[in-house]
Amino acid sequence: MNKSIYDVIIIGAGPAGLTAALYASRGNMKTLIIERGIYGGQMQKTEEIENYPAFKKILGPELSQQMYDHAIHFGAEYVYGIVSSIKEEGLYKKVIASDKEYITKTIIIAAGADYKKLGVSGEKEFAGRGVSYCAVCDGAFFRGKEIVVIGGGDSAVEEANYLTKFADRVTIIHRKDKLKAQQILQNRVLNNPKIDIIWNTVVENINGIDKVSNLKIKNLKNNEINHFNCDGIFIYVGMNPLSNPFKELGITNPAGCIPTDEKMETKVKGIYAAGDIREKYLRQVITASGDGSIAAQSAQHYVEELDEKLKSLK
Amino acid sequence: MNKSIYDVIIIGAGPAGLTAALYASRGNMKTLIIERGIYGGQMQKTEEIENYPAFKKILGPELSQQMYDHAIHFGAEYVYGIVSSIKEEGLYKKVIASDKEYITKTIIIAAGADYKKLGVSGEKEFAGRGVSYCAVCDGAFFRGKEIVVIGGGDSAVEEANYLTKFADRVTIIHRKDKLKAQQILQNRVLNNPKIDIIWNTVVENINGIDKVSNLKIKNLKNNEINHFNCDGIFIYVGMNPLSNPFKELGITNPAGCIPTDEKMETKVKGIYAAGDIREKYLRQVITASGDGSIAAQSAQHYVEELDEKLKSLK
Repeated sequence: MNKSIYDVIIIGAGPAGLTAALYASRGNMKTLIIERGIYGGQMQKTEEIENYPAFKKILGPELSQQMYDHAIHFGAEYVYGIVSSIKEEGLYKKVIASDKEYITKTIIIAAGADYKKLGVSGEKEFAGRGVSYCAVCDGAFFRGKEIVVIGGGDSAVEEANYLTKFADRVTIIHRKDKLKAQQILQNRVLNNPKIDIIWNTVVENINGIDKVSNLKIKNLKNNEINHFNCDGIFIYVGMNPLSNPFKELGITNPAGCIPTDEKMETKVKGIYAAGDIREKYLRQVITASGDGSIAAQSAQHYVEELDEKLKSLK
Repeated sequence: MNKSIYDVIIIGAGPAGLTAALYASRGNMKTLIIERGIYGGQMQKTEEIENYPAFKKILGPELSQQMYDHAIHFGAEYVYGIVSSIKEEGLYKKVIASDKEYITKTIIIAAGADYKKLGVSGEKEFAGRGVSYCAVCDGAFFRGKEIVVIGGGDSAVEEANYLTKFADRVTIIHRKDKLKAQQILQNRVLNNPKIDIIWNTVVENINGIDKVSNLKIKNLKNNEINHFNCDGIFIYVGMNPLSNPFKELGITNPAGCIPTDEKMETKVKGIYAAGDIREKYLRQVITASGDGSIAAQSAQHYVEELDEKLKSLK
């Protein structure tokens, strides 16, 4: 067999990709990870993680490092590359990344998703120190605090309600004069005594010393500027699955996510998806890792069948 | 609200149950775990685990302890109890365990599964030291070794083939004179030069000093006894999901597993299942934990809706 043909190429080195690499390489598959940034994915941008089971508290970059070391330990190769497309190549598949071509039997897409940003000053600086995009991840850090939620859709409204389990006061700041969320969710926040709503208003910048302490906000009707004190700001203005290179395969849904079955198989045989890029219910490190292990197992079975086919053609 | 009503009761304290408890209690739910043995589940019986992401190598009991400590850290309560049944109790549910009754809004069933045992001498003593029930978990420990696989069904035959990726030689020992597995899987092992099959034969006992070194085997046709040298024995004679107390709910499949949707919801509203007891593709610590986090999130949403209903009835 040609030495340069991989059993599996994994696109993305967040928890889904790294776990897929761990399972695949430990299962003796010739494994390559292609990552366009730094390994760890969203974990790298996370200050503290306290819900990855067995670690009461760990820094995001530290968990990234441990998962990377673990994946590499069993022989997975790792290269930098920006994947631009995937092509069929006879019974194999070809991944094109940063002008290089890689041939493989199967592919696991674990390229992740980005939360949409407000794009205001202070947002990047205070990420993980008062600025959050995930209530399930970070809500528990705000017990007894005052927080702001940005957005008016289902996620914003649902998470505002959830955050009142921790925070003393939650204020929704919304650029329009009504919410877009389902009526039942709207009713829940309108009836929640801990939630206020400020309408027709946007955040101009996020301020603080070590962490978020106040927001400069602007009323879009009268251009009035105010400063609003808070300990945290949860931004729910949407999510970008990083799936552009895979759209030509016809495996994405209208939101850009990749639907799979429970074996992580996409619409294309031999191509699997895992982690945040999937159409899924709960995006967490632990669920991404679970996805990764399943995708590797499915890829393993696919390779066994393909190897048989290749042998019979000889 | 009555102090003794739980938001969620979790049955079982393996990785699924402990992760569900971590997520539920960190999400401010009043959480009770009921366990009939020791926390950790199958992990407690596992010598070394090297595929839980971020730990290159950890003892099963140690990972159990860390997951337990983590779950308890956020306030989950833990009691001993053998669950005998679950009943509806108005808008609540009742769990009966070791003659005590517990009232709760939701239930997560994470009671696990046991691998069926051969029931021969040496099997228990050498568990984790040459005796295994899971090729994906333990195959990598047998690089260059000689191993035996017991069974003739799909799992036995599929995993025998998989194990040749690691072992120099794999011998299937089967009590009958033909395999029960699908024909395509049979062909794969019959054509695999690394696999031998010994027919009409059972294992009488498993021997060794520190770890498995040989098996006493008996031919059922002629009662001939032999000693077969090997480094490991993988037993694939079936799985027992521990679901008897839940059968009256009508949520189990013919094999005794509990089917769920991707939100871990069973056929009964407010009752979720997670981990090995589920009908699922891959049973691993990492997938059980993923299930647990999802079940807790689903339970959280159910409780929010139920609390609204309870408030409107006041």
